[in-house]
Amino acid sequence: MTEPKRISDLATPAFVLNRHAFMINCIAVSEAANRGNLNLRPHIKTHKTTEGAFIQAYCSVMPPCKQKVELGPSHIAEVTGFVASTIPEVSLLVGLAERFGGPFQDILYGVPVSSSKLRELHELRTKLESGHIHLMVDHPTQVDFVEQFVSEHCPLFPFSVFLKLDTGYHRAGITCDDRGVGLARRILDSSHLGLRGVYSHCGHSYDVNDPQKLNDIAEADLSQIVKFVQLLNENLQSSGKEEYVDTTLDNLIVSVGSTPSVFSHRNSDDAMLNNLEIHPGNYTLCDRQQLWTGVCPNEAHVAGRVISRVIGHYEDRNTILLDAGATALTKDTTPQGGVCSIAGRSEDLECYKMSQEVILVRTVDRNQPFPFDEFPIGSIVTLLPNHSCLAAACFDRYHIIDDPSSEFSPDEVIIEEWKPAKGW
Amino acid sequence: MTEPKRISDLATPAFVLNRHAFMINCIAVSEAANRGNLNLRPHIKTHKTTEGAFIQAYCSVMPPCKQKVELGPSHIAEVTGFVASTIPEVSLLVGLAERFGGPFQDILYGVPVSSSKLRELHELRTKLESGHIHLMVDHPTQVDFVEQFVSEHCPLFPFSVFLKLDTGYHRAGITCDDRGVGLARRILDSSHLGLRGVYSHCGHSYDVNDPQKLNDIAEADLSQIVKFVQLLNENLQSSGKEEYVDTTLDNLIVSVGSTPSVFSHRNSDDAMLNNLEIHPGNYTLCDRQQLWTGVCPNEAHVAGRVISRVIGHYEDRNTILLDAGATALTKDTTPQGGVCSIAGRSEDLECYKMSQEVILVRTVDRNQPFPFDEFPIGSIVTLLPNHSCLAAACFDRYHIIDDPSSEFSPDEVIIEEWKPAKGW
Repeated sequence: MTEPKRISDLATPAFVLNRHAFMINCIAVSEAANRGNLNLRPHIKTHKTTEGAFIQAYCSVMPPCKQKVELGPSHIAEVTGFVASTIPEVSLLVGLAERFGGPFQDILYGVPVSSSKLRELHELRTKLESGHIHLMVDHPTQVDFVEQFVSEHCPLFPFSVFLKLDTGYHRAGITCDDRGVGLARRILDSSHLGLRGVYSHCGHSYDVNDPQKLNDIAEADLSQIVKFVQLLNENLQSSGKEEYVDTTLDNLIVSVGSTPSVFSHRNSDDAMLNNLEIHPGNYTLCDRQQLWTGVCPNEAHVAGRVISRVIGHYEDRNTILLDAGATALTKDTTPQGGVCSIAGRSEDLECYKMSQEVILVRTVDRNQPFPFDEFPIGSIVTLLPNHSCLAAACFDRYHIIDDPSSEFSPDEVIIEEWKPAKGW
Repeated sequence: MTEPKRISDLATPAFVLNRHAFMINCIAVSEAANRGNLNLRPHIKTHKTTEGAFIQAYCSVMPPCKQKVELGPSHIAEVTGFVASTIPEVSLLVGLAERFGGPFQDILYGVPVSSSKLRELHELRTKLESGHIHLMVDHPTQVDFVEQFVSEHCPLFPFSVFLKLDTGYHRAGITCDDRGVGLARRILDSSHLGLRGVYSHCGHSYDVNDPQKLNDIAEADLSQIVKFVQLLNENLQSSGKEEYVDTTLDNLIVSVGSTPSVFSHRNSDDAMLNNLEIHPGNYTLCDRQQLWTGVCPNEAHVAGRVISRVIGHYEDRNTILLDAGATALTKDTTPQGGVCSIAGRSEDLECYKMSQEVILVRTVDRNQPFPFDEFPIGSIVTLLPNHSCLAAACFDRYHIIDDPSSEFSPDEVIIEEWKPAKGW
């Protein structure tokens, strides 16, 4: 019998994912969606794994089967589908759809679609027995080339789309005014596209860590979309297009939110939309940014961490060196400062400098001596990333632990490996 | 006959490497080393490829042979060996050593060694017919565990080491005083280790873009190391250890430098060390940071670029969206500002915001309208990374062009693919 593999056996840097915390985070979001009368369309961009997507839908561990199985309803809140941001992510969801059906069959490719990706997306959707791969559009030119693609390659198989709206983040999205209405009309009038939903991402919530302000953003996000749907309704009615108002618009999916605002959205009594859903992703792993926004209540919820080793002591300048750098954590920033933090030591120690392969750590109070004895050369140090989506993307495998203590002890046993869908 | 693959055929984002510019950069550094009476020990961390390492040594394209061949002397300056910062990088150099011998046989594993890496490094060095994998040490504890490893596993096969010195960058490295001398003595006195060289990295040169200041850093770097070697000499003589002074210290490799200072180092007339070498790496690809330091004379020398496509136009807010984000470029910064730049458009356009999979671009002069007509949706846009080492590390293959114009035209033919050594 071979010894189990433990964290202390890993070559460093390594990405270790605590499945227990991942599930707790998924249950919390599912329950919050349920309380707010919301559906849930999880984003898989943070973890990019079949195992993670399964837990997002069912809050339980994937059954170890290769053949097709039927599953019961998804956990607590209804999981209506998934969002993905790369073709490999879409592909892994199609694989889950082939095995399990259910919410994996309703996939939104969640970036404004490029004509260069249409062929692959079409090939993937032909693998689905039922269900859809929805495209995201926010400009008439995109509608033009989707129409052209469908008319040339699959005239009987229109693409369903989500209209991306800008509700204040000003990244992607068309404005919630006549422009947006015009584009929605363009889609509704086309025989090669179907309007399945409208979508906003309130990414400006990442700059906020006050619950009241997060509620304000969530409410403004929703009210703009509700007004847009009303505007669209009026426009269609006044132009004699009542057929859309009675059928399509009632079923329109309204997809809102972001991880920082995940606990702030409600299907308000006066709106009470039929198909209101949230689409968070980062909540599965959490990170220092989410500790700052408050959505991640404490470090125990940070499910994805980078394991490193101490490789240098510099007594003359009161620092130590760790063998994880920008190729393992990336250089994203958070309001707390620092390039990452050591689990449990954010108060007294600061990871203040990062190069390609190493990190330097010093005391927050520079007058205090560095506690070298607690960090002997060769010892293991657990790091909380500033941004878990980017840190996870540095690795081609995650080492999985099931650790209710969230201590990531060097003795913790690795129970499995998850392989993320790499590339674009 | 199939059509050749062109840049316009690539799924985006993609990493495209202009071999022509890569070779020009290698020739420039080789000539500079020659002018300065310096040897050259290129670092492969930036590209992590066998093809790139070959060009660093010979400034020519690798012969297409799998069997072992004998090659003539390396180009212009003597290439005495290589530096690598991960085990997979060391492994690819060992592969080159098996085919070509030459400078690939002298490999420095260039981060303070961790006990957890010793077994792999030892296994790799046993594959070398001759030559060495040198370790880097800067603390007595590292010497302790290397001694223990050698005495337990290979008592007749000592590890040669480079002593890492801190000459002002304050990242890794022991001080150039009694501490450093003590550690050098400890290595010289051990039968399980051999002192092959001393090493400094003047990484503080990255903050400087004035040629005179870069010269000052280069001179300070060298003078501190020369003083250290003299101090070591005196210490050994006064303690009756003349055997070291006559033999080992004369052959000691003195390895200095960084890419920003690569044209600033000289083997000065009064020092004229036997084995003075520089060890740059980033010069092969260059990037926006090196455009700023001035080492990269113009954009034509930026050999590694990220190809993206326009996926959104936002006329209301005067921006466009590109399908490359932090998973393709990372979030490193440069003094010029911006998350990257569009080739040839750094004066009028600003890549001002980056998310996981997208970049937003606006006009530098916000009163100017965005030139949407020059960037139609679907068109290809070439991006210069802020930091090429980190951008290249996002990809599992590089698409190679041979483009003397450095225009990266969409019609440019992809002549081959290079696969970098991933992981640690």
